[in-house]
Amino acid sequence: MDKRALYSLSYGVFMLSTRVGDVVNGCITNTCMQVANNPTRVAIAAINANYTCELIKKSGVFALSMLDETCTFETIRHFGFQSGRDVDKFADIQLPVDKNNIPYLGWQTCAVISCRVVDSMDLGSHTLFVAEVEDGQVLSGKNPLTYADYQSRVKPKPEKKQEDKKIIGWRCKICKYYYEGSQLPEDFTCPLCGHGPEDFEPVYEA
Amino acid sequence: MDKRALYSLSYGVFMLSTRVGDVVNGCITNTCMQVANNPTRVAIAAINANYTCELIKKSGVFALSMLDETCTFETIRHFGFQSGRDVDKFADIQLPVDKNNIPYLGWQTCAVISCRVVDSMDLGSHTLFVAEVEDGQVLSGKNPLTYADYQSRVKPKPEKKQEDKKIIGWRCKICKYYYEGSQLPEDFTCPLCGHGPEDFEPVYEA
Repeated sequence: MDKRALYSLSYGVFMLSTRVGDVVNGCITNTCMQVANNPTRVAIAAINANYTCELIKKSGVFALSMLDETCTFETIRHFGFQSGRDVDKFADIQLPVDKNNIPYLGWQTCAVISCRVVDSMDLGSHTLFVAEVEDGQVLSGKNPLTYADYQSRVKPKPEKKQEDKKIIGWRCKICKYYYEGSQLPEDFTCPLCGHGPEDFEPVYEA
Repeated sequence: MDKRALYSLSYGVFMLSTRVGDVVNGCITNTCMQVANNPTRVAIAAINANYTCELIKKSGVFALSMLDETCTFETIRHFGFQSGRDVDKFADIQLPVDKNNIPYLGWQTCAVISCRVVDSMDLGSHTLFVAEVEDGQVLSGKNPLTYADYQSRVKPKPEKKQEDKKIIGWRCKICKYYYEGSQLPEDFTCPLCGHGPEDFEPVYEA
């Protein structure tokens, strides 16, 4: 099987947020699709190891901010490249809240939906949530950011290979997980965030 | 709730096909996303009223041809704008088959995956299938066709309004369902194919 076939699936890029009591958290995700009409329902897949997934299982509600083409890498990094278990990503920013009192992005975002989980399926690495869309708001007329556009334009380019130095390990650009060894296995999946070899960068000897 | 918020979700465009014995059918769909790693799983949503959905419930297997940017409206129309209950869409064309003997598109397609259903959820209008990806093949290096690109570039533009004539009904451009009346309700959903008002065109008095 050529796993690259899956790279041709098209996705958006979203900030997925939730609240349990006073605890608020959010992460960056690329999986959401409408799966039913009357009532309108969407499905999202969240990584089980992620704090946001853990919180959605408790709260049963989430907001999905649909990032637009003006979204910067700093926004993605803030919400996507650190864990809410280590830092409060919502501490020093003022955000609007939806009908469930969940903060959503009021900038670099073309639309937001408020969702209530009606069913879920544990798939090992991820949980698939099916949720009813309780509210929706268009924030701007800008085009949504696609995952392909994020990969080719927004994400920083990898540093040039330092050909005179030896590779001693690989670091996940998404969650900073460190793999020790000169050769990253081709089918490697980051044990923390689930990303593949294309999201790892080499670490060279000093 | 502003349902237009959902228009900012990004999708690809696919030809979804299956086989039950000698019966082969396929349709055009825009919903597929990867939802798990190890094993690799995807989720698709299929309209319950559609023949392909009925057949996948029986076969438990499907192929998903990921259409690319060279895909023409004729291909979309052939597989998407008629029902396999009325015509055999695969009668006069020669197609390659996947490991489950299901035909997939060998042209205007950048990749194909072969999937086996492991779970499903009936959501009223649609069934959500979760499937293990058993095989995958990259067919070309072309960019996948996105649903936004299909809407803005591939799909024919609506005819100019005939201002001197009265509108007597509305026809669904997807499945040809006819709605009698001068005004199509804003939240109307086609009872046959599930599409909204943006996919209806006016029918004028003779």
